[in-house]
Amino acid sequence: MNTSFIDACFRKEVDHTPVWFMRQAGRYLPFYREIKGSKSVFELAKDPESVSELVSRTVMELGVDAAIVYSDIVLILEPAGINFTVKEHSGPVADKMITSPEDLDGLASYNPEEELGYVFEGIELSLEKLNYSVPLIGFSGGPFTLACYMIDGMKNRTMEKTRRFMHLYNKEWHRLMVFLSDMVLRFLKAQVKYGVSALQVFDSWAGLLSKQDYKEKVMPYTKNIFTSLPSNVPKIHFCENSSHLLEYFCELDADVLSVDWRTDISLVWEYSKQAKAAQGNLDPVIPTIGGEVMLNAVKRLLRDVAGHRGYIFNLGHGVLPETDPENLKTIVKLVHEQTRRRI
Amino acid sequence: MNTSFIDACFRKEVDHTPVWFMRQAGRYLPFYREIKGSKSVFELAKDPESVSELVSRTVMELGVDAAIVYSDIVLILEPAGINFTVKEHSGPVADKMITSPEDLDGLASYNPEEELGYVFEGIELSLEKLNYSVPLIGFSGGPFTLACYMIDGMKNRTMEKTRRFMHLYNKEWHRLMVFLSDMVLRFLKAQVKYGVSALQVFDSWAGLLSKQDYKEKVMPYTKNIFTSLPSNVPKIHFCENSSHLLEYFCELDADVLSVDWRTDISLVWEYSKQAKAAQGNLDPVIPTIGGEVMLNAVKRLLRDVAGHRGYIFNLGHGVLPETDPENLKTIVKLVHEQTRRRI
Repeated sequence: MNTSFIDACFRKEVDHTPVWFMRQAGRYLPFYREIKGSKSVFELAKDPESVSELVSRTVMELGVDAAIVYSDIVLILEPAGINFTVKEHSGPVADKMITSPEDLDGLASYNPEEELGYVFEGIELSLEKLNYSVPLIGFSGGPFTLACYMIDGMKNRTMEKTRRFMHLYNKEWHRLMVFLSDMVLRFLKAQVKYGVSALQVFDSWAGLLSKQDYKEKVMPYTKNIFTSLPSNVPKIHFCENSSHLLEYFCELDADVLSVDWRTDISLVWEYSKQAKAAQGNLDPVIPTIGGEVMLNAVKRLLRDVAGHRGYIFNLGHGVLPETDPENLKTIVKLVHEQTRRRI
Repeated sequence: MNTSFIDACFRKEVDHTPVWFMRQAGRYLPFYREIKGSKSVFELAKDPESVSELVSRTVMELGVDAAIVYSDIVLILEPAGINFTVKEHSGPVADKMITSPEDLDGLASYNPEEELGYVFEGIELSLEKLNYSVPLIGFSGGPFTLACYMIDGMKNRTMEKTRRFMHLYNKEWHRLMVFLSDMVLRFLKAQVKYGVSALQVFDSWAGLLSKQDYKEKVMPYTKNIFTSLPSNVPKIHFCENSSHLLEYFCELDADVLSVDWRTDISLVWEYSKQAKAAQGNLDPVIPTIGGEVMLNAVKRLLRDVAGHRGYIFNLGHGVLPETDPENLKTIVKLVHEQTRRRI
């Protein structure tokens, strides 16, 4: 197995900088559209055969050093009683939002192995089709981001309903965080049991919170997730636009902090005193442009991170739908070439 | 005239902490809906009589220490050839977006005093109706934010089209920034000529950029705006979610940095070595809640800023439509009471 990704997560020496892309098995790929056919996004995610085909073909096509489970972060909420419909342009939208503390009474705890069987079957099939050539990363949404999907009901700029609920119903907010972090933990542990080699928690929207609110109302639960996970599997924390929270992320028992283009990536090493690896952070707009602009941006990023142990090349956020797959292949080759020379 | 706001901007001693609210003359006010009647938002902004009524009644109603010109930041683009329609929920939407460098050829430079006469008439009438009791703040969008309205065409989470244009068409981007910063500068200078006592530049969305992109592609133009404005009028720079850019904002010739709840407000004084005043940064969700939650949050913020010279109380962003005006009145009274005691 190509272990460069796992080694980099644990800040070991590597013979080249590992690369993968968030949302690498996405709709920008011609064979994604082929495999998906007339299925909805959720139907696709629930079909282990298609999922494993997609995951393995993506790795072969791009030449990346890691695969990631194909799923959607809201699916963990379905067996708990919150259903979503995927809408064009806006992504998943909750059929019914949480608006009052009473709505929390309807939430049902459940056993992920029983209710999300398609995820684990997809993991097993993906590993087979990958022929264990690269590590497979399991993932879950983080507690704040999942709460946003339940209360605001969909992706938006400010998550005002969620932040309002958080301030207005302090006790119930903590009850919700306990519920969500417990579900996330069980879901992640089960993924490890079925064979994933690393875990990433996408608490993508926690950057909407002030330092104080993050520290008091979200961090204790995220912290508990990370400390309760097995230590032999590297763990990654991802959050968008969150420079102001970086010092708190350093306190999580995560091995890697994945940051977007707005956070200076070298701050991960600086703030953590070299205790964490860094993942990121090319602006996803760049691979939609390609050419000299892209090559220069990649080289500039490689210069910025040169000499730091524990680095995984990635975008600052997911691959955009209008990306030409050839551009990602060019990036993988360039990163491998440029960093192989340095050993 | 109540000079507490101007004095605080210039970091002079004040007998109470001044308070005003971004978007204080907004649709959460019953008399806003009354004055607006069946007019569109733009029709309202272009009616000096209504505007001045709104501006002055807001000050009387809330008891704030400053008034702000009532307008919309996209209106500066209209005489340049970019028209907008206000849509429910999304705000102004460009009728036709800039998609290629050639589209810039259609942009027309113009004299704000001639083409935006309604703004200056509104300023004169507002000052009269306010009876010069409090300072009136003039404003403009910043160059990046105006470019977003032209290229992405409307408010969204990521401004991908704008960032793509910026990277793809380097030369034309700079041409656009020159055009916009020149228009902004002329517009702001004209507002001073007609009597405003302070200026605020809303480059609200520049926080979407990486440090490097902001520094190379936006900052030179913003810097030029601030250094070219008269020094006897205090100047405020506002940007959302932009902790990572704060050190650059400190280099602008602005007197005040207005930050949102995600930036630790004390960093303004720390990073600027006490050279700038700070404005902000209560989470706008808080006044939609009221009660103990609100009182505690306001007191906590006042404790955080206590002892710093050069502080203006404000929200981290505009007043939300679902805010009860009584809550803002309570905040004004509380801030005045709590800070008056300290002298």
